[in-house]
Amino acid sequence: MEIVEKKDEELQKSRHSLAHVLAKALVSLYPNTKLAIGPAIEDGFYYDIELDKSITANDFQDIEKKMKEIINKGEKFEKKVVTKEEALKLFKDNVYKTEIINELKDGEEVSIYYLGEDFFDLCRGPHVESCTKLQNFGYKIHSINGAYWRGNEKNKMLQRVYVYAFRTKKELAEYIAKLEDARKRDHNKLGRELQLFTTVDYIGQGLPILLPRGAKVIQLLQRFVEDEEAKRGWLLTKTPFMAKSDLYKISGHWDHYKDGMFILGDEEKDKEVYALRPMTCPFQYQAYLNQARSYKDLPLRYNETSTLFRNEASGEMHGLIRVRQFTISEGHLMCRPDQLEEEFKKCLELAIYMLKTLGLYEDASYRFSQWDENDKEKYIGTKEQWDEAQSSMKKILDHLGIPYVIGIGEAAFYGPKLDIQIKNVFGKEDTLITIQIDQMLAQKFGMEYTDSDGSKKIPCIIHRTSIGCYERTLAYLIEKYAGAFPVWLSPEQVKVLSLTERNNDYASEIVEKLKEEGLRVEADLRNEKIGYKIREALKMKIPYLIIVGDEEEKNGTISLRGRGNENKSGLKLSEFIERIENEIKTKKI
Amino acid sequence: MEIVEKKDEELQKSRHSLAHVLAKALVSLYPNTKLAIGPAIEDGFYYDIELDKSITANDFQDIEKKMKEIINKGEKFEKKVVTKEEALKLFKDNVYKTEIINELKDGEEVSIYYLGEDFFDLCRGPHVESCTKLQNFGYKIHSINGAYWRGNEKNKMLQRVYVYAFRTKKELAEYIAKLEDARKRDHNKLGRELQLFTTVDYIGQGLPILLPRGAKVIQLLQRFVEDEEAKRGWLLTKTPFMAKSDLYKISGHWDHYKDGMFILGDEEKDKEVYALRPMTCPFQYQAYLNQARSYKDLPLRYNETSTLFRNEASGEMHGLIRVRQFTISEGHLMCRPDQLEEEFKKCLELAIYMLKTLGLYEDASYRFSQWDENDKEKYIGTKEQWDEAQSSMKKILDHLGIPYVIGIGEAAFYGPKLDIQIKNVFGKEDTLITIQIDQMLAQKFGMEYTDSDGSKKIPCIIHRTSIGCYERTLAYLIEKYAGAFPVWLSPEQVKVLSLTERNNDYASEIVEKLKEEGLRVEADLRNEKIGYKIREALKMKIPYLIIVGDEEEKNGTISLRGRGNENKSGLKLSEFIERIENEIKTKKI
Repeated sequence: MEIVEKKDEELQKSRHSLAHVLAKALVSLYPNTKLAIGPAIEDGFYYDIELDKSITANDFQDIEKKMKEIINKGEKFEKKVVTKEEALKLFKDNVYKTEIINELKDGEEVSIYYLGEDFFDLCRGPHVESCTKLQNFGYKIHSINGAYWRGNEKNKMLQRVYVYAFRTKKELAEYIAKLEDARKRDHNKLGRELQLFTTVDYIGQGLPILLPRGAKVIQLLQRFVEDEEAKRGWLLTKTPFMAKSDLYKISGHWDHYKDGMFILGDEEKDKEVYALRPMTCPFQYQAYLNQARSYKDLPLRYNETSTLFRNEASGEMHGLIRVRQFTISEGHLMCRPDQLEEEFKKCLELAIYMLKTLGLYEDASYRFSQWDENDKEKYIGTKEQWDEAQSSMKKILDHLGIPYVIGIGEAAFYGPKLDIQIKNVFGKEDTLITIQIDQMLAQKFGMEYTDSDGSKKIPCIIHRTSIGCYERTLAYLIEKYAGAFPVWLSPEQVKVLSLTERNNDYASEIVEKLKEEGLRVEADLRNEKIGYKIREALKMKIPYLIIVGDEEEKNGTISLRGRGNENKSGLKLSEFIERIENEIKTKKI
Repeated sequence: MEIVEKKDEELQKSRHSLAHVLAKALVSLYPNTKLAIGPAIEDGFYYDIELDKSITANDFQDIEKKMKEIINKGEKFEKKVVTKEEALKLFKDNVYKTEIINELKDGEEVSIYYLGEDFFDLCRGPHVESCTKLQNFGYKIHSINGAYWRGNEKNKMLQRVYVYAFRTKKELAEYIAKLEDARKRDHNKLGRELQLFTTVDYIGQGLPILLPRGAKVIQLLQRFVEDEEAKRGWLLTKTPFMAKSDLYKISGHWDHYKDGMFILGDEEKDKEVYALRPMTCPFQYQAYLNQARSYKDLPLRYNETSTLFRNEASGEMHGLIRVRQFTISEGHLMCRPDQLEEEFKKCLELAIYMLKTLGLYEDASYRFSQWDENDKEKYIGTKEQWDEAQSSMKKILDHLGIPYVIGIGEAAFYGPKLDIQIKNVFGKEDTLITIQIDQMLAQKFGMEYTDSDGSKKIPCIIHRTSIGCYERTLAYLIEKYAGAFPVWLSPEQVKVLSLTERNNDYASEIVEKLKEEGLRVEADLRNEKIGYKIREALKMKIPYLIIVGDEEEKNGTISLRGRGNENKSGLKLSEFIERIENEIKTKKI
């Protein structure tokens, strides 16, 4: 069922009006200020200005005070339409406004907005009626950045004043608290602190190195996914990460995706040019093509823990979320048309099962990504083929009752997608999982099956992931759990600390017993204060600490420190083992 | 302990003498024959000839008969030294011999060998005294190939007559029988028939596609290796498959290994050039470099299931053994000098444990691969550094009592290696596992630790594999077991066949029970004759077939067909489960 994304236009209007208030405050405090542009953004607004003085955090309070004064006066926003010539005259000392005015098309309306009688700004509007509408607003200048005029590094560097702005002071406070929390959870910071991953300049951007703790989590996820998929009838393949350009010419990647690929060799010089794969489809199709297929063989489900390479621009790299090499729980399923809906449903069920198991389901939403029929560069196939694929997918989605937003121009180049979106801690949304329908690539590779009547048919193909990209999933898990992974996914599950060196033998005995049970356990037998040893272990977010001193040794027990300040003493080791094994078995979150 | 490879010079001399016998036979049967060259090879000899008639398999018997006649005459091989001018005159009608004579250096002896009075050939010798020495030999012409003169495709194509030759007819027969068997086991043929892998022209050479049955074996091997290594204290990493040229410039790959790498981008045109990694070392070192290290932290053992890429020449590709992309059980261990021998020993023990588990140990031998001090292009480091590393390794090897052959110029560019060699079914030897010692790369990357006295030291590094390259290991396993893998490694472990469609429910019930036990099981419930169903399952070398008909259904039993013509009926399913689970647990071979 399609749902339409609502944009809160009223809020954005207020934020933009507040940008004018900021501008008036700046001009009043620093008369040399040259205003450039001041749009509303997701959590407030900013204004780019040229000013000889560098604004610093020390000035924020003064500026905010001045803004408050202006708002409290309750002055009105008043629009005045002027001619282009009048506008140029009014802003003759401001190169930025002059440039904007000169770019206006002939006949386009030129307007300025007054805020009180002593301040106006070039602006399309709309604005709130008067500052009284802004009196309940919570706003806070939070940073100053350098920003090139129009984002072009050949232009002058301006000062960008960033302001959070929400309807009430309470909302603002909540937002700031959430941000504080998000910063602590940011996988790109926390993931490094927890020694899950790192990056190295001389290796390159978007090429993270998974350290033993991070690699362990990915290994656990990968085995979980591969085993669950095997149970559901998926057959594992392992296909090469590169191919000759010949393959990509058949698939259409060479014409529609070349910029996103890493090419090996030079088409003009070399006999054979190779490229690293940006997708698994044409490689995995070879498993299907390896034998003649009958309608009785279908559906055929192939999965692969597949590494892909995309030549993303340097500026777009981000931690484990935007990377150039990533590994994905890939799958391609070939079926008859009469099996398509049932198999699509099963793919969706698998994805939801994965998200629920990981505790990410509540953060997910759906996008139905369709083609853009005006963008002939991006897509293969005819309008008829797209209409058919998209209406077939719409029918399935509506039948399953999934609430989705439509995204035009977001389809893969060969077919429509259902994207499962996840927001990161800062509210930025990315696709984690995708399920796609395709017949066009099947046709290009000559895939077919013999139907019951002996005729040759092209199979329907579902491209899908079940857990998505492992690196990205790890990033979301770090942020979701602030690094305190569920026990079954924790790189170390237990740390055994000796209270004194006298207790080291007893501690080692416990470590051995836990290892025998297949638990991931470490020991801290150093001659350090127990408080220090506990703090260090907590910093790494290890789920359980077992502390043993003379008392425990005498009684053959353990003291347990669990998450959420759980403290227990006099516990039997067997009780603890039963408890943790149950948590692992049920994948408790 | 060094062992010296013996070459059987006496045998090669006899083979080369037989090549003259063949030449005489050919000239006698086809007087137009122009002789080129006829060297001894590993299993006999060949002779390249120019002849207007195309020799075919139909001619082999005549030629062999003529050879026999010549041998039975017992004629002598007699050397005659001639001048270059005399030689040119004798061979004026033979462009090949003329070319060889013209290339002789001034002063070099020119000799011809007579075989009887009516035949002579240009030859350096030596030869056996007379044909009586060849009378017991077993020889057999086995093929004719086209071969360019001197291997250069611009030259004339000659006919190459291949002959097997051994000391006795019995040895020959044994060799031919072994070859027959090898051909049946050849992984490049059998691996495709068993649907373990395939290759596709438009993807490229040396880039095999592992089909579900092959990918399953690799998945099982990988988990086995990763788990065993974890038990032995190895920490898993997952590092990127490519890096900027900057990394390879530090490591020395850019200067000493560039031809073997796949380069992404053009150094002259692009700001950043990347390359796919041919080795894991500098990537995995980053895990060590991520934190400051103390002598107490060592040894640190990092393992990785690592994919590597090598730009091998097209002609050298072979099935799963010579490939351009492969995945290896990689590991790097950083330790103090006082830990080196013990850790080296543990690495060797791990490799031997793996080989024994897989049943490959009896096929293994050792090579101590050293540098070639005259090859400055290939190696980094000074003579002192190499002497130190090699003598340290020699000490360890001799101490451990390993019998090894020395290979000069076979070291890695940064240090000496112990290579564990395996022969394939055709007798061709390749390296499966390698253990290396290195301090040079550690130094280049600024790796260090703080020693007990507070000083900074460079760690010793062991580079090692434990099971080697997974693709190559799979190839050896296919050949070793002729596709009939040990039960724990079999893609399918059990197939349940219904005798009639009446028994399908009972068969399905058994399948479900076996699945619940975690066994890999398939069903064949088709309405086909049981003999046909059995033959099909045997062809795929499935270890156990369970056959159920009315009798079994009535009694709640199964009939079992195991390897080696094992046939049992009236078996309880639980008995079978106990047996197969025991075989899996013990990794029975």
